[in-house]
Amino acid sequence: MNFPEGFRIAGVKDDKVGMGFIYAPEGMSSAGVFTNNASPAEPVKYCREKIKDSDIRAVFVNKGSANAATGPEGKKRMLQLLGAASSGLGISKDEILPASTGVIGRHIEYSESLLNRLLSRKEEVDPVSFSEAIMTTDTVNKIAWSTFELAGREVTICGIAKGAGMICPDMATMLAFIMTDADISGGLLDKALRESVDLSFNSLSVDGETSTNDTVFLLSSGKSDTPKIEKEGNNFSIFQKHLDRVAVILAEKIASDGEGATKFIKVSVTGAADDAEARRAARVIGASPLCKTAFYGASPNWGRIISAIGGAKIGVNLEKFNVRVNGVPLVTDGVDAANSAKQAHEVMTGGRYKLEIDLGRGQGSGLCYTCDYSPEYVRINANYLS
Amino acid sequence: MNFPEGFRIAGVKDDKVGMGFIYAPEGMSSAGVFTNNASPAEPVKYCREKIKDSDIRAVFVNKGSANAATGPEGKKRMLQLLGAASSGLGISKDEILPASTGVIGRHIEYSESLLNRLLSRKEEVDPVSFSEAIMTTDTVNKIAWSTFELAGREVTICGIAKGAGMICPDMATMLAFIMTDADISGGLLDKALRESVDLSFNSLSVDGETSTNDTVFLLSSGKSDTPKIEKEGNNFSIFQKHLDRVAVILAEKIASDGEGATKFIKVSVTGAADDAEARRAARVIGASPLCKTAFYGASPNWGRIISAIGGAKIGVNLEKFNVRVNGVPLVTDGVDAANSAKQAHEVMTGGRYKLEIDLGRGQGSGLCYTCDYSPEYVRINANYLS
Repeated sequence: MNFPEGFRIAGVKDDKVGMGFIYAPEGMSSAGVFTNNASPAEPVKYCREKIKDSDIRAVFVNKGSANAATGPEGKKRMLQLLGAASSGLGISKDEILPASTGVIGRHIEYSESLLNRLLSRKEEVDPVSFSEAIMTTDTVNKIAWSTFELAGREVTICGIAKGAGMICPDMATMLAFIMTDADISGGLLDKALRESVDLSFNSLSVDGETSTNDTVFLLSSGKSDTPKIEKEGNNFSIFQKHLDRVAVILAEKIASDGEGATKFIKVSVTGAADDAEARRAARVIGASPLCKTAFYGASPNWGRIISAIGGAKIGVNLEKFNVRVNGVPLVTDGVDAANSAKQAHEVMTGGRYKLEIDLGRGQGSGLCYTCDYSPEYVRINANYLS
Repeated sequence: MNFPEGFRIAGVKDDKVGMGFIYAPEGMSSAGVFTNNASPAEPVKYCREKIKDSDIRAVFVNKGSANAATGPEGKKRMLQLLGAASSGLGISKDEILPASTGVIGRHIEYSESLLNRLLSRKEEVDPVSFSEAIMTTDTVNKIAWSTFELAGREVTICGIAKGAGMICPDMATMLAFIMTDADISGGLLDKALRESVDLSFNSLSVDGETSTNDTVFLLSSGKSDTPKIEKEGNNFSIFQKHLDRVAVILAEKIASDGEGATKFIKVSVTGAADDAEARRAARVIGASPLCKTAFYGASPNWGRIISAIGGAKIGVNLEKFNVRVNGVPLVTDGVDAANSAKQAHEVMTGGRYKLEIDLGRGQGSGLCYTCDYSPEYVRINANYLS
C-alpha cells in the first residue's frame, strides 16, 4: 500500500481498549463531516467547533467508550486524554481532533502504559496498526488508497475506516480517516469531502441506524510538492475523482463487513422523478428489513421492493417497472419474470451482485451499498451487555 | 364472545386460498382507514372511492393474492370476484367493499366450489371461521369485543384482525374489521375510527414497514335500538372509549404475534416536547433494529435508545433521562443503574413488559406497541417464494 507523505500514524490495543493517532509534525489542513444524530458524542460536539480552527496537527482516537451520553464527566475525561496525548506528541492540546468508538454511556478508561506505548511510536508510519486498534465488531480492517499524478507529481490519498455498518451504535459505528499529501486549500478540502461522503458513506445502509459518533475526516499534509489547489479546475477534478474512489471502496468494505452479513448488494435505482428521489428509494430498499431478509434468502421477491418504497411514498409506473440482478430479470415491464426466477435466485445466492430497479417514471438515478440481514445479525446484537 | 346484531359473517379456506364475508342484509354505515403506501393494492384504491357511497351492505375478503402491483388485470379479477360474490349474496356488486391479503404481484385465483361453499353460508354468524380464513403468517386468530350499555340498551363492538405485524408485505399485512350494532351517523363513525386507529394500529410497529394493503373498516348495523348518535356528547364518548379498547386489544394481539417475536413491549415515552414528538420517539424505538435485537437478548442497553431517537433528530436532557422496565431502572437521571441491571434483565427476559422512557425535556407523552426481532424473524422472511 501507498501512504501520503507528511503523516505519522500508529495504533495500540489491549483486550478492551484501543488507541491511535494521526500526526502531521508540520501541520495539516482538515475537513470533517459528522453525524446528524440529535445526541452526538462528546468528541463530535468538540470537533464541530475545533475543525473551524486551522491549526490542527493530530487526530486522536480511542476505542472502548463512545463517550456519548456521558455528560460533563465525559467531556472532562476527553480533555484529560487529549492533554496526555498532546504532552506525548509535543504539541498543544488545542491542535488535536478527538474521535471515539465503543459503548454509549460508558466512560473513557485506559491504562497509562498503553498510552505511553502508543506515544513512544510517534515517529512511526504504521497505518495497519492504527486500523486494527480501532476495530470493534469489524471482522476485517478497512484501508483503501489511490496514487496518481497531479501536475507532474505523485500524490496519494489513503483512507482508513472502521464500522461493521451503521448497525452497531453500542459500538458506536463508523469512523473514517482519509489522508492525502495533495496541497489543497481548506475550503476546497471541505467541498471535496462533502461530495465524496455523499457518494459513499451517505449511500451506505446496513440497518438504517445513524450513530452518535459517525465521523469522516479528510486531512491534507500538502507534502507532495504539487502546486496548491486553490480553485475548482482540472487538478481539483482529478483529486475529487480519486477521493471518490477511495471513499467508495471504504463504503463497500463497510457494507461487506455488515454484522452477520452474507451478501453485499449494490442497489441502483433509475427512472425516478429526480436523482434525490432515486437515492432515497435506494436507501429505503437498503434499510428495509423485509428486503434485507429476502436478500438473505436469495428470494427474488420484487413485491417487497414496491411495498418498501411505496411505504416511503415513492410510487412506480408498473407498466415500465423493471428489476434485474446482474442483468437477470425479476420483473419485466411490471410482469413477473417467472422464466428467469431460478437464474435470479442463483445470482442472489452468489452473495455479491448489482440490483437494478427502474421505477419507470423519470430520469433520476441513485445508488446505495447494502448487505443482507441474517439470523447472525440478530444474535450479534442481542448480546447482553456487561 | 358477543357479536353485534344485524351482521352475517363467515369464512372458508383451502390449502392456499381463504375467503370471507361480512354482510348486513338491512344495510350498514361504514368508515375506512387505508394504507399511506404510494403503491396501494387494487381493493384499497377501489374502497377509497366506494366508501364515500352510503349504500354498502357487505365486505368481501380474499387471502392468497394481495392484488397489489397487478395492473388492469388485477382490477378486472377483483370486479369479477365481487360480481360472483354479489350474485350469491343477492345484492349489487356496488354494495360490496373488497379487501385482499397475500402475495404482492400475484393474481387472484380461487375455485368456484370454495366460493359456493362460502356463499351457501350467507345466513350464518360465524366470526371465528372468518378470522381463520384470512390468517396468513398469523399463528393465532385475533378477535376482541366489548359489550356495554348505551342509553339503556346493550351495544356490542367486535373486531377481527389479521396480521403478524407490519412485517409481512408479501403476505400483505394488516386487515381489521370492526363491527358494531350501535346506531351512529356516518361522519361520527369516521371520526371515531380515525381516533381509535391513531391510538392503536398506528401505534404499532413490528418492523416499520407499511404494506400496500393495510385497511381498517368500522361497520355499523344500527340494530341495537339505541337512539342514533348524531353529535359528540356523552353517548359518543362512551362509544369511543369502547371502540378504543377493542382497537388497542387487536393492536396488542398483532404485536404479540409479530413474526418470530418472543417478547411483547409497550413503549411509553414521556418528557417529550409534545405528544407528537413522544409518539414519534416511541415508534422509532419500536422500529429500530438495534433496540429490537436488544429486546430479544433482554439487554438493558439504554444507549441504543438514545442513539435511535437521536438518529430521528429527537434529543434528550441527559440529566433528567430515565428508563425503566416494569418500574425497574436501567438509567436514572442520566446515570447507568448498574445495581438494578440484573433485575432489569430478568424483567426483560420475562417477555411481556412496559418500557418507560422519560426524555426529561417537556410534557409530551405517547405510546407504541412492539415486539422483538429474533433469528426466527429473519428465517420466516428469508423463505424463497415460489
